[in-house]
Amino acid sequence: MEKDQKLREIKLFAPATVANLSCGYDVLGCCLDNVGDEMLIRKNDKKQIRISKITGQDLPMEADKNVAGVAAKALLTALGESQGFDIEIEKNIKAGSGIGSSAASAAGAVFGINKLLGTPFSNIELIKFAMEGERLASGNAHADNVAPALLGGFSLVKSYNPLEVLSLPNLPELRMLILHPQIELKTKDSRSIIRQNLELQKAINQWGNLAALVSALYTKDYELLGRSLKDEIIEPVRSILIPYFDELKTLSAANGALGFGISGSGPSVFAMCKGDKTAEKLKAEFQEFYADKNIDFDLHLSKINSEGIKVL
Amino acid sequence: MEKDQKLREIKLFAPATVANLSCGYDVLGCCLDNVGDEMLIRKNDKKQIRISKITGQDLPMEADKNVAGVAAKALLTALGESQGFDIEIEKNIKAGSGIGSSAASAAGAVFGINKLLGTPFSNIELIKFAMEGERLASGNAHADNVAPALLGGFSLVKSYNPLEVLSLPNLPELRMLILHPQIELKTKDSRSIIRQNLELQKAINQWGNLAALVSALYTKDYELLGRSLKDEIIEPVRSILIPYFDELKTLSAANGALGFGISGSGPSVFAMCKGDKTAEKLKAEFQEFYADKNIDFDLHLSKINSEGIKVL
Repeated sequence: MEKDQKLREIKLFAPATVANLSCGYDVLGCCLDNVGDEMLIRKNDKKQIRISKITGQDLPMEADKNVAGVAAKALLTALGESQGFDIEIEKNIKAGSGIGSSAASAAGAVFGINKLLGTPFSNIELIKFAMEGERLASGNAHADNVAPALLGGFSLVKSYNPLEVLSLPNLPELRMLILHPQIELKTKDSRSIIRQNLELQKAINQWGNLAALVSALYTKDYELLGRSLKDEIIEPVRSILIPYFDELKTLSAANGALGFGISGSGPSVFAMCKGDKTAEKLKAEFQEFYADKNIDFDLHLSKINSEGIKVL
Repeated sequence: MEKDQKLREIKLFAPATVANLSCGYDVLGCCLDNVGDEMLIRKNDKKQIRISKITGQDLPMEADKNVAGVAAKALLTALGESQGFDIEIEKNIKAGSGIGSSAASAAGAVFGINKLLGTPFSNIELIKFAMEGERLASGNAHADNVAPALLGGFSLVKSYNPLEVLSLPNLPELRMLILHPQIELKTKDSRSIIRQNLELQKAINQWGNLAALVSALYTKDYELLGRSLKDEIIEPVRSILIPYFDELKTLSAANGALGFGISGSGPSVFAMCKGDKTAEKLKAEFQEFYADKNIDFDLHLSKINSEGIKVL
C-alpha cells in the first residue's frame, strides 16, 4: 500500500465488456481479453482531474463531461481526497459500439486512481464510482459493463438497491466473437425502444434460462450454456436496429456457436463459441458475409478475461 | 433390472415439495424429507390401473380422475405396456395445502411402476408422465413439484418446450419450516389472480435474485441464498389470500430465518432457516402466534431431501 502511494503514475489496459448476454438483460456481463483501451493516469499538483489527452476517438476533454473524469471525481469525493490526476486515454474501443466503451474509461480511471492512492477501495467497491461515468454516458448508472471490467470474468448484478455484484466462474474454452457494424445507435435510443411491460410467461422463460446459464458456468457445461443463451424479450425488438442480425444468428448456429445475441444495447453482436477452431471458422464466415454489405465493421475474437483491468 | 421385474409390489415414501421459492416462480422447487405420503403399488392381473385404497384424504378412486392413476396411465401408454397395477395411497399431505400433494401421488405412482417394470425410464424421464397428474389436478402440467419429488434436492425447470430440468446442489444445513393454515385455496384460483403482464424492471429484479440464488447454492452461501429469496411479482398479490402472511414474514425475519415466502400457490408458507436451532425456535414462534387465530394449521419442520422418493 505504501509502495503504491509513492507511485506517481500507472498505465493500464481497460477492457471491453459484453453486457446482457441474451437472457441476462441488465444483470449479466463478461470481460474481453484483447479488446480495450490503454490509459495513463498520473498524479498532478493542481488538485484537479484533467483529461490531458485522448487519442483514437473524439470525446470531451472537459472532466465533467468525460466519463473517466466523472467517475474519478466520484471516487475522490467519497474519499474526501484533494489529490489531482491527469488522465490520458488511448481509445481503441469505439464509442457507441455496444462493448462497453464508456465503462472501460470509467472503470480504468477509478481503478488507476485507487491504485495510486494506495488501494483504499476493493475492486468491487469501485463499481459504484465507475457507474457515475455510465450515468453520464447513457443517463442510466448501470453496472453490467463496469463490473466485469473491474472484476473480470462474468459478473452478475444481483441488485442495485443495495448494489450487490457477484463474480461467476469463467469457462476457459469460451471465445467471444464480436462483430461491430459501424452504424450509429445511441444507448439512450436503444433503451427507449424497449417495452416497459412484458408477458409473465416470457419473464418466466427468461429467468429459467438465466438460472440455467448460472448453473452451466458452475458445472462447466458448455452445451447447457448455449441452450440458455436465449432472449424472447429484448432481442426481438432491438435486433431490428442491427443490420443482418437474423442472418448472422443463422450463420452462428450453422457453424456450431453456442449462442448469438446483442452485445449490450448494440449495434455490436456476439457469438459465443467453445474453442479457437470454431471461433476462427465463424470469424471467417462473418468476415465473408459482411464484406459486401457496404457497412464498415470491426471483428474481434477474444477469450473471456478473468482478471479485468490489467496494469501494464 | 431382472430382479426388479420379478418384484410384485413396492412400498414408497412420496415426499412433499415446495415450489416457486419466492424468486423462482414456476421454475424452482425443493423436496422435503419427513413430510409425505406412503404408497403401495402392486402388479395385478387385470391389465388396468386401479386405485385400490386411499386413506387420510377423500380423493377420487376412479383411476382417470385420480392424479396417480392418470400419471400411471401416461407412463404405461408410452411403454405400450398392458401390465396392470393396484395403487394404495396413505395420504399424509393434505390436498390443496400447497406442498405438492398431487405431485407426490403422481410422482410416486410413476416411480413405483417404473421400478416394478425393471426401470425402463430414468427419474428425469419420469417427470413428463407425473406432469399429467398435475394437469388433472390444476389444469396446468407444471413440473416444479414433480421434478423435486422425483429427483430430490432443488430442481430447476429450465424450459418446457423442450422439457429440461436441472438438479441444483443442496445445502445440508437448510431447514424448511412449513405452516399450512387450513383454509381452502385451489391452485386454479390462486393462479387466476396472477397478473399476466408485469413491469420489465420487476422482472429484471426477479431474475437477478434467481441467478444469485443459483449461485448461492453452488457456493454454499446461506446468507446470499437468504438475500435472494425475494419476490416482487407474485407474493404481493397472492399473499393477500393467506391469513397473517405479513406477520409471519416479520416473525421469520426477527428470528433469523434466511427467507420466507409462499409455498407453491399457497396457502402454505415456508420459512427457510440455517440449522436446527433457528428452525426449532421459529417453529415455536409460529406455533404460539397461530394458536389463537381460530384457524386450524399444521406445522412441519424438515431438511431438504436430497434423494426424492424413497423405497421403504
